[in-house]
Amino acid sequence: MTTSAPHDATSPGGQALSGLSGTERTRVRRLSERGATDRQALYEVLDAGRICHLGVIVDGSPRVLPTGYGRDGDTLYLHGSTGAASLRAGGEICVTVTHLDGLVLARSVFHHSMNYRSAVIYGQPRLVTDPEEKLSGLRAVVENLVPGRWDAARQPTRKELAATAVIALSLEEASVKIRQGPPSDDDEDYELDVWAGVLPVREVLGDPVPDPLLRPGIGYSK
Amino acid sequence: MTTSAPHDATSPGGQALSGLSGTERTRVRRLSERGATDRQALYEVLDAGRICHLGVIVDGSPRVLPTGYGRDGDTLYLHGSTGAASLRAGGEICVTVTHLDGLVLARSVFHHSMNYRSAVIYGQPRLVTDPEEKLSGLRAVVENLVPGRWDAARQPTRKELAATAVIALSLEEASVKIRQGPPSDDDEDYELDVWAGVLPVREVLGDPVPDPLLRPGIGYSK
Repeated sequence: MTTSAPHDATSPGGQALSGLSGTERTRVRRLSERGATDRQALYEVLDAGRICHLGVIVDGSPRVLPTGYGRDGDTLYLHGSTGAASLRAGGEICVTVTHLDGLVLARSVFHHSMNYRSAVIYGQPRLVTDPEEKLSGLRAVVENLVPGRWDAARQPTRKELAATAVIALSLEEASVKIRQGPPSDDDEDYELDVWAGVLPVREVLGDPVPDPLLRPGIGYSK
Repeated sequence: MTTSAPHDATSPGGQALSGLSGTERTRVRRLSERGATDRQALYEVLDAGRICHLGVIVDGSPRVLPTGYGRDGDTLYLHGSTGAASLRAGGEICVTVTHLDGLVLARSVFHHSMNYRSAVIYGQPRLVTDPEEKLSGLRAVVENLVPGRWDAARQPTRKELAATAVIALSLEEASVKIRQGPPSDDDEDYELDVWAGVLPVREVLGDPVPDPLLRPGIGYSK
């Protein structure tokens, strides 16, 4: 069964992702045909996402937290509070962004799978202290949520900015995995009387719901 | 800015989640009003999801991998290959399931946020060796993908079953966080001429896409 195992580095075989990183753990060593090699693919997966899952180590155990993020060039910015524990610990972090694109229904349960795009980034986080970078990092996070929103809303005060921790993570060591397309069944199973194909999954935005406290006369805009 | 920080245990304040766990790390210590305390909420968040993000430690660094899962009572089952490294290492794992429900646009950039439901589970994973439990665990994973699909597809052979590792994780230590509703702005900002509210986010299934190799005459069914 292959409902899982993107970025799995525990099985033999596979190939290095030359465009992104040459380290062992970001090679896609299993299901190597799902490896995407170029940096553009990494940007596309990251820029299409709204939340990442941040992995840190706390007291010797892994902790995985959902959080917003934004990209500026080859740097990923995260709102700092979720990463505070890892910063104190001083270790590496891992950031994963996943898009579920389809449920892949094979003729055998064993070959059920998912279509997805995902990116995994490893690195030593850096606490942003430069005020300019802090502002541009936060801007990247908010713009990734809703493009154009930063300029539409009230800008951060000095006090708010001081109260906000921003973490930067280089995109130096990263991998991208993509699975798309129909199921792959065993030869003899194609004769079976079982429907097979893909149920596409999409994330959609609904109509804007105004804040009940919104002043009258203000129409929706970013 | 609060685009992030669900399950953050690094800030002061907050409360224990009495219905789920009393350990320090699953207390929602920040934004405590987002804590949901009962086991039913945990089940609902898990059962509404299709992928989780599995956190393991490999060579001293965190690794976060997307993978399928299924729930059977108070046990979560994962396809084993993604967890193989953690099993070898012998340590705890962390499993996080997140639903993004809305983009929360406040009048100030500082108060932008997201509506979400998320669950975080910590524990020592267990490699399932009992054949009956292995089968029921895999069934839970496939049924969580598409309910009813297990019985519709060809069952696993003995060989397939032997080739598949299944990991069990108890739901003993878990936390749930939920944020819903409009933005929360500073008092003075409600006078601003800025639209505020929520952009709802939904995951939808598209029309089934048949496998190009599907035999004629087989209509879609689970």
